[in-house]
Amino acid sequence: MLRTLLAAAAAVIAAPAAADTLVYNVDGVTIGEDGEVVRFNGLVFDDEGIITDLVTRGDDRPEVDYAVDGKGQVMLPGMIDAHVHVMDIGFAALTLDLSDTNSLEEALEKVRRFAEENPGRPWILGRGWNQEKWGLGRFPTAAELDSIVPDRPVWLERADNHANWANSLAMERAGITADTPDPEGGRIIRDESGTPSGVFVDNAIPLVGAVVPPPRPEDRDNAFAQAQQVLLGLGVTAVADMGTSVVDWMTYRRAGDTGGLRIRIMAYARGVEAMELIGGPGPTPWLYDDKLKLLGVKLYLDGALGSRGANLKESYADEPDTHGLPLLTPSQLRNLMSRAAMDGFQSAVHAIGDAANEDVLFAIEELSESYKGDRRWRIEHAQIVDPVDLERFGRHGAIASMQPLHQTSDMMMAEARLGEERLKGAYAWRSILEAGGRLAFGSDAPVEPADPFAGIAVAISRTDKNGRPFGGWRAEETVSREQALAGFTADAAYAGFAEGIFGRLLPGERADFLLVDRDPLLVSPSEIRETRIAQVWVGGLLVLEN
Amino acid sequence: MLRTLLAAAAAVIAAPAAADTLVYNVDGVTIGEDGEVVRFNGLVFDDEGIITDLVTRGDDRPEVDYAVDGKGQVMLPGMIDAHVHVMDIGFAALTLDLSDTNSLEEALEKVRRFAEENPGRPWILGRGWNQEKWGLGRFPTAAELDSIVPDRPVWLERADNHANWANSLAMERAGITADTPDPEGGRIIRDESGTPSGVFVDNAIPLVGAVVPPPRPEDRDNAFAQAQQVLLGLGVTAVADMGTSVVDWMTYRRAGDTGGLRIRIMAYARGVEAMELIGGPGPTPWLYDDKLKLLGVKLYLDGALGSRGANLKESYADEPDTHGLPLLTPSQLRNLMSRAAMDGFQSAVHAIGDAANEDVLFAIEELSESYKGDRRWRIEHAQIVDPVDLERFGRHGAIASMQPLHQTSDMMMAEARLGEERLKGAYAWRSILEAGGRLAFGSDAPVEPADPFAGIAVAISRTDKNGRPFGGWRAEETVSREQALAGFTADAAYAGFAEGIFGRLLPGERADFLLVDRDPLLVSPSEIRETRIAQVWVGGLLVLEN
Repeated sequence: MLRTLLAAAAAVIAAPAAADTLVYNVDGVTIGEDGEVVRFNGLVFDDEGIITDLVTRGDDRPEVDYAVDGKGQVMLPGMIDAHVHVMDIGFAALTLDLSDTNSLEEALEKVRRFAEENPGRPWILGRGWNQEKWGLGRFPTAAELDSIVPDRPVWLERADNHANWANSLAMERAGITADTPDPEGGRIIRDESGTPSGVFVDNAIPLVGAVVPPPRPEDRDNAFAQAQQVLLGLGVTAVADMGTSVVDWMTYRRAGDTGGLRIRIMAYARGVEAMELIGGPGPTPWLYDDKLKLLGVKLYLDGALGSRGANLKESYADEPDTHGLPLLTPSQLRNLMSRAAMDGFQSAVHAIGDAANEDVLFAIEELSESYKGDRRWRIEHAQIVDPVDLERFGRHGAIASMQPLHQTSDMMMAEARLGEERLKGAYAWRSILEAGGRLAFGSDAPVEPADPFAGIAVAISRTDKNGRPFGGWRAEETVSREQALAGFTADAAYAGFAEGIFGRLLPGERADFLLVDRDPLLVSPSEIRETRIAQVWVGGLLVLEN
Repeated sequence: MLRTLLAAAAAVIAAPAAADTLVYNVDGVTIGEDGEVVRFNGLVFDDEGIITDLVTRGDDRPEVDYAVDGKGQVMLPGMIDAHVHVMDIGFAALTLDLSDTNSLEEALEKVRRFAEENPGRPWILGRGWNQEKWGLGRFPTAAELDSIVPDRPVWLERADNHANWANSLAMERAGITADTPDPEGGRIIRDESGTPSGVFVDNAIPLVGAVVPPPRPEDRDNAFAQAQQVLLGLGVTAVADMGTSVVDWMTYRRAGDTGGLRIRIMAYARGVEAMELIGGPGPTPWLYDDKLKLLGVKLYLDGALGSRGANLKESYADEPDTHGLPLLTPSQLRNLMSRAAMDGFQSAVHAIGDAANEDVLFAIEELSESYKGDRRWRIEHAQIVDPVDLERFGRHGAIASMQPLHQTSDMMMAEARLGEERLKGAYAWRSILEAGGRLAFGSDAPVEPADPFAGIAVAISRTDKNGRPFGGWRAEETVSREQALAGFTADAAYAGFAEGIFGRLLPGERADFLLVDRDPLLVSPSEIRETRIAQVWVGGLLVLEN
């Protein structure tokens, strides 16, 4: 009897009253089971938000409880960004941004307005100032900030991250006086009398930075809500979060527990300790109706090209004394990847330089001997690859998680750092696909904007928003429109073991979709960048409408 | 239209097909809304496991989908233990227990069997040995352990926690040699030649303890499963976990996420940092159908009576040089309680000595001036209270969370430590109730067994399991049977803001109940201790059957 009782209770939960919804009158586009493009004109989902049917013009209209007129708009799968820093997107959106200011006066006015609009913030934090752009001919001063915000500490990061600008109260909180010495590798800008004038360079930045209060839990909740708003606004319904800390995870769970989790997050923990604390003996299950899952660990193997931290096989063309710095020895990398793999966690390894990429490709090769099965070893960025190593992407199920916008942002700088010869394997999307590798596309937001349509435009053109360079930079590495769409949908899902759950508009997957005003498979790259998003649906619920 | 759609979806979720269950033919007993005893003969709950009706003999039999014959047994609310250490219960249950051994040979045989039964454990850990009880006349040796377990490190805690016994491999792992000096406040027992012989006293214990590997996530999951089994086996369906670490919390969530959470946990974080990391801006919601919630923070204000750490107003009777040690200054205590209160977290403050109790009572008084409303300030243990302070328990909604079994375990020791005069406010359950204070009863398991029926027996008799002392120790402080039952059910729920959710068998509460063979309101204390539990139900599901 009791067994019957338990079974009956389970049946009740599994079979709610049916209430299907049809979205009709759309030009639907999705990547299909085998990577092909599937077109349709209507989509049916059930009341758990799971797609049950696709309808094509000429089919019988299905019997449903609700019907939504798509008004002839284009329906696309919700976009997936395979590489973002979710909390950083939110904090950046909540921070004063001075990067668009063209004079000191304009900047001060923006600081004043921000302080006024945010009376509850104990510190005014900002970023993006650049006295060169302002034509100031000198650094700005604490006194200038004091005239605007005398009663709260102000702390503003320069555009290049190499200097910060404080007001007097911020310096006072940090105990900075004329007697404070310059630290090694850092400089405190001073007036003629030796008094710190408000700007702190490089290693002097932490002198004040250390007293900035860390975000409170409500700040984190706020930032996360903001990040979700930013992402959904750009048509992004799912992301891979690259470097989830334990506090980040708690923030996401808090949102999940209180009904505030609106996007889907494939989380990669910030190091193996966070991985173990969050996941325990293995990846978490999908939580909150497939909205959150810890899949594995993010590891850093080298730095970035701009700061010459990317680890290269030969020295930098524009600084022959250095070839970058590996952040892990080959043994450390293998030990960490092994630590993850033995418990079924996925590894996502940041590798930008060709030496770093070779190292992680070799590591994948070696680890694959012990850790069989479907491991989906991820290489994040994979920017500069020695052409001889490209074919290794075709082995052992490696995934290159790449960011098209980095290519247009970096192209000039990459030429300076590397010279012509080493660009043959740079941002080599098509070559990796042709080697049999898999791509997943993303943005690295907030480093680049999280705009997937800009990403698609670059992926198929290798030109920037001004259409430059004409014909595309190393245009032989463009991908097809279908591959670009797959990179931001089905293939980004695959990279997080989410195929069959979301990423395609096919029966059995979650009804995550966009209604937009144009078809990225048909219009020009510059038109793709101008895509207008009318509605965003996640799991069969309308979450954003423009 | 879309709004209608969302509303319709919500309605579907809220209205599953009804499937009520009746448990009939029982002698039901519960504490009612106003602390009175309510008796009934049948209980109806719905398929969410929530009680919808109580039935009394003579009522019409309700129409239900399922009916379970209670076979005339006594139905009680699931017992609630207001003070346990959940993970420690589990780890203790998984660790070799030598406390029942009466000779070295018996202990070695038990070690041998445990090692054999647990081939996967990298270290053999145990506790409870006592060479005095064995009549050995000397400490045991590493060589004796080596003869039984030569190939894995063994590390066994003495009954009093003041010495540990290692085998040679454990010492080798720790790098212990004849050259290792005794640390300050510690001693390495050595043979005539100066070679460590296997026993480490006091501050020498960490020399080996530091190399014992911390539990792996799967060990924690295992321990938690074990703890739940122990608790359910004793009829405990809900607990307050006193000192939940972040890893503990992750373990509970993992169980919740994968359907393995069987008991209800009211969690109090181990310090304010863990509180903030787990809860963020405030207490979590009830998670997993009212199975888990972080309510607040556990703070330690003093130590224990046995080790003379309890903070007393006057010095110890049996050691006039000390009156214990406060672990927090009055300001620190207030700052921490304030830090919790400002975000709506509850404080649960460990206070054993009369000075500590006075301090926390004063702190509650002061904090109540700023933090209004229903705060339910908890004092954990509240063992030794200056009679002049007793009336303070009646103010500001203070809750004394006390453990009846401590009274019988401690009574001889308490007399030695305190002398007759200061026992007037010792374990003063009835006085606290009469002062208008609220009691919540618990066990402090694994320090004491988590057996609530033993707790009820002590609460009404103040005699130990042998019925001593005849008539009860300071019997004026016994409580009534109804108060004892309430302390382990309704009042323990109230202490965790869970009234109306569980703790009483009343409509609207979760159907957490026991079927037992006797009525604790009718039989003698010694008979209460022998209560046999036939079935344990949590949330309308049978979770344990004997």
